[in-house]
Amino acid sequence: MKISLEELAQKFDAEFQGNSSHQISAVAALDSAKSHHISFLSNSKYTSLLAATKAGIVILSQENSKHFKGNQIIAKDPYVTFAKVAALFQKGNSQVREINSNTVIAKSAIIGKNVHIGAYSIIGENTIIADETVLEARVTIGNNCRIGKNCLIKPNVVILDDCTLGENVILHPGCIIGADGFGLARDIDKWVKVPQLGAVVIGDDCEVGANTTIDRGTMDDTVLENDVHLDNQIQIAHNVKIGAHTVMAGCSAVAGSAKIGKNCLIGGGVGIIGHIEVCDKVTLQSMALVTRSIKKPGSYSSVSPLQETSDWRKSAVRIKQLDKIAKRLTRLEKQESKI
Amino acid sequence: MKISLEELAQKFDAEFQGNSSHQISAVAALDSAKSHHISFLSNSKYTSLLAATKAGIVILSQENSKHFKGNQIIAKDPYVTFAKVAALFQKGNSQVREINSNTVIAKSAIIGKNVHIGAYSIIGENTIIADETVLEARVTIGNNCRIGKNCLIKPNVVILDDCTLGENVILHPGCIIGADGFGLARDIDKWVKVPQLGAVVIGDDCEVGANTTIDRGTMDDTVLENDVHLDNQIQIAHNVKIGAHTVMAGCSAVAGSAKIGKNCLIGGGVGIIGHIEVCDKVTLQSMALVTRSIKKPGSYSSVSPLQETSDWRKSAVRIKQLDKIAKRLTRLEKQESKI
Amino acid sequence: MKISLEELAQKFDAEFQGNSSHQISAVAALDSAKSHHISFLSNSKYTSLLAATKAGIVILSQENSKHFKGNQIIAKDPYVTFAKVAALFQKGNSQVREINSNTVIAKSAIIGKNVHIGAYSIIGENTIIADETVLEARVTIGNNCRIGKNCLIKPNVVILDDCTLGENVILHPGCIIGADGFGLARDIDKWVKVPQLGAVVIGDDCEVGANTTIDRGTMDDTVLENDVHLDNQIQIAHNVKIGAHTVMAGCSAVAGSAKIGKNCLIGGGVGIIGHIEVCDKVTLQSMALVTRSIKKPGSYSSVSPLQETSDWRKSAVRIKQLDKIAKRLTRLEKQESKI
Repeated sequence: MKISLEELAQKFDAEFQGNSSHQISAVAALDSAKSHHISFLSNSKYTSLLAATKAGIVILSQENSKHFKGNQIIAKDPYVTFAKVAALFQKGNSQVREINSNTVIAKSAIIGKNVHIGAYSIIGENTIIADETVLEARVTIGNNCRIGKNCLIKPNVVILDDCTLGENVILHPGCIIGADGFGLARDIDKWVKVPQLGAVVIGDDCEVGANTTIDRGTMDDTVLENDVHLDNQIQIAHNVKIGAHTVMAGCSAVAGSAKIGKNCLIGGGVGIIGHIEVCDKVTLQSMALVTRSIKKPGSYSSVSPLQETSDWRKSAVRIKQLDKIAKRLTRLEKQESKI
Repeated sequence: MKISLEELAQKFDAEFQGNSSHQISAVAALDSAKSHHISFLSNSKYTSLLAATKAGIVILSQENSKHFKGNQIIAKDPYVTFAKVAALFQKGNSQVREINSNTVIAKSAIIGKNVHIGAYSIIGENTIIADETVLEARVTIGNNCRIGKNCLIKPNVVILDDCTLGENVILHPGCIIGADGFGLARDIDKWVKVPQLGAVVIGDDCEVGANTTIDRGTMDDTVLENDVHLDNQIQIAHNVKIGAHTVMAGCSAVAGSAKIGKNCLIGGGVGIIGHIEVCDKVTLQSMALVTRSIKKPGSYSSVSPLQETSDWRKSAVRIKQLDKIAKRLTRLEKQESKI
Repeated sequence: MKISLEELAQKFDAEFQGNSSHQISAVAALDSAKSHHISFLSNSKYTSLLAATKAGIVILSQENSKHFKGNQIIAKDPYVTFAKVAALFQKGNSQVREINSNTVIAKSAIIGKNVHIGAYSIIGENTIIADETVLEARVTIGNNCRIGKNCLIKPNVVILDDCTLGENVILHPGCIIGADGFGLARDIDKWVKVPQLGAVVIGDDCEVGANTTIDRGTMDDTVLENDVHLDNQIQIAHNVKIGAHTVMAGCSAVAGSAKIGKNCLIGGGVGIIGHIEVCDKVTLQSMALVTRSIKKPGSYSSVSPLQETSDWRKSAVRIKQLDKIAKRLTRLEKQESKI
């Protein structure tokens, strides 16, 4: 596909400067782009890259426009505009839609219009798959599930019984929706498994990363509201609720019955313990551990700072002595006040 | 299924109070339960919920009985009794047991009585699957494995050659038993892979969570004793031994040849380094890192406390200075003692 | 297979002492080995095990040779020699190589000589699989991929479109190569997905652990240079570059566009944030978090030390007060200087 600067500007209702007929056919980063590429500048930290870029067109902000003399599209939010432009160049799933013959689909399942079900997929009893949804291949869906319209489900995804997806949901490879929550009651001499009788309910426009796991609830459901985006290797335990527009980076984990607000930004490797609440608009920095409810929007951190290991050993010894150090200091202060 | 208060009390050999003929047909949490639900109160922190609950029956302790006037079952351990009651309402696998025709089963494999093997499963040479075991679908079992009686193996589980499961083992979707341990020897200019010739041995009544990985041993085996429960996304490295009745929450990782005792409670995101021992009855709080052997039962922690990021930055700077701070304090104390 | 001390010594061009005709047929650890086993001593910490071992042959260093009177092979690096010896006893994939009939292979795919494709595998359009490569079973490879010679791909691996593997690459079960990177642009009231148009390029002699995920790049590729070894449950985000001979232990995570040097040793559970560089020859201790570029080779750490939880609570309180503590100390020092 080729598209000109003018056509792009019209399509995205944006201002442009430069040669209106210059055509691009692909996207690239500023430092590797050539004349047939469109690129973007979002973070002003990288403004210096504009001087050297060979990109045919650059998407940038009004403010950065003055630093660049080449063909450009001026956007309020260059990254959002870039996301939309890049979508033009994404390979469509050109594959013909079909129900592959190497599949096991329960007779009671209801399959909508223009649904694709790839090879080696399994669909359980009474499950409903709405129109336009694509199951790429090797997808396992249990009984009594409801999969909304226009979802994209990648290979090796497993959705267990009774779970629900909204519309436009993307499930990346290997993610597992609705495995049993980790519920155990300690009897006298051994553990008794607590049956997990709830399900998982995922709203519209959500995305679940590769090999991420979302457990079913014990009695109620585990819930992702609309427009929640989870990266890879995340663990969401039973009965967790995640508010709309919250995004979570890779390897984070939320323990049972925790409730996370809307519009939170949760970094990678974060831990949130069970039965607490995180309010709306909270940012958690990478590898933070949240051990009590957060009631005030803002940014939170908890990790010790990186040091060379030889220095770190000295700090580590002192951390263990900290309470004594503080008490020694208090004693000295008292002495001093007597002088 | 409907069951009355009196029938329940008899079935679980428990005391009851209230309308003996009141019937319930499902379980629910105290705050969402209605008249046809049975609920429970285990943590006295939530006693206040009893006043408002609409549950038809509540399972509670002798002590909490006085706070509730409705129908009730009085149990020594309400959570254990609840687990057993809830099991009554778990959907049985009503599916007819069969060896699905879309499977690849080696001729030398031995399949017990009443075994179910779901679609797209693969069973290797000389593998033995004991009676009553269910492989839900899309299960891969290698050569020379022994799978005990009455196991439940969920979709996308992979068990590699030579591994052994005891009886009543549950493997959740996507878990991988017996992948190669991470063994590398550094030769002059590149890494040489150390063959992993051991296997994985899992005892009776164990449970392995979704997408959890347990590596095979290098020479000896990696071992889970009986009644070990692992949550999702856990990594157990080669040659690890985990004692009976130990439970481990999601995203924890145990490095090679570590030995964990019996009856340990290991929180989420915990790290245990290689070649150390953790004794019996140790509790590790979430995201703790264990870098040396623990010889005394008890609870251990290591994470820095959560702070607002702006405050945290100040603490982080000071952590790096801690050794100097301590030395400055010591100097002051010496000065003071001279005064 | 049986092999004598003399034959082994010849094969690996090593010195030996003892009964040249003594034969061994398996490997074992020093403390469990019997007369038909070969074992090794690499870490001098365990020299005391030599006295009691019943191993038929031990591989050890010149220095440790004096501590052992039994049959022995003297090696420069006993662990490397052991790795090579152990490889002799690894079960060959005795399975006849075949293209299993239960597979879905695109007509445009090009399959090399002596390739094995196990049951329920799927190969996409225009994908090339070079000679001698083994896809064990249930492997999914997308369109336009290039898989080099002599690779070993285990069950449940997913490789998405356009990705490239070099020669001799091992992919362990459940790993996912080329899922979408986590790219989101915040529009006024919701997230817009940023298309991920790059791919993943993996060099020769690399190994990727079970359930590890490596995301495709946004515009450029995510790259592993030659001889990179990743353990299980690792997350590599979009556009990350990892230098040759770097190894990374389980559950580590590297955020988008980070660049890691050659010959790094990265411990388990380590986090590396996005857009930073780690130079060559850096060791990162377990669960360290790297928040800025590292420009000097060496060992780095960041975790708080493990304490009993009751002691840890006291330290945790003081960590929050650290900045104030340091300021109080400074004030005292000023007072003292006036005296």
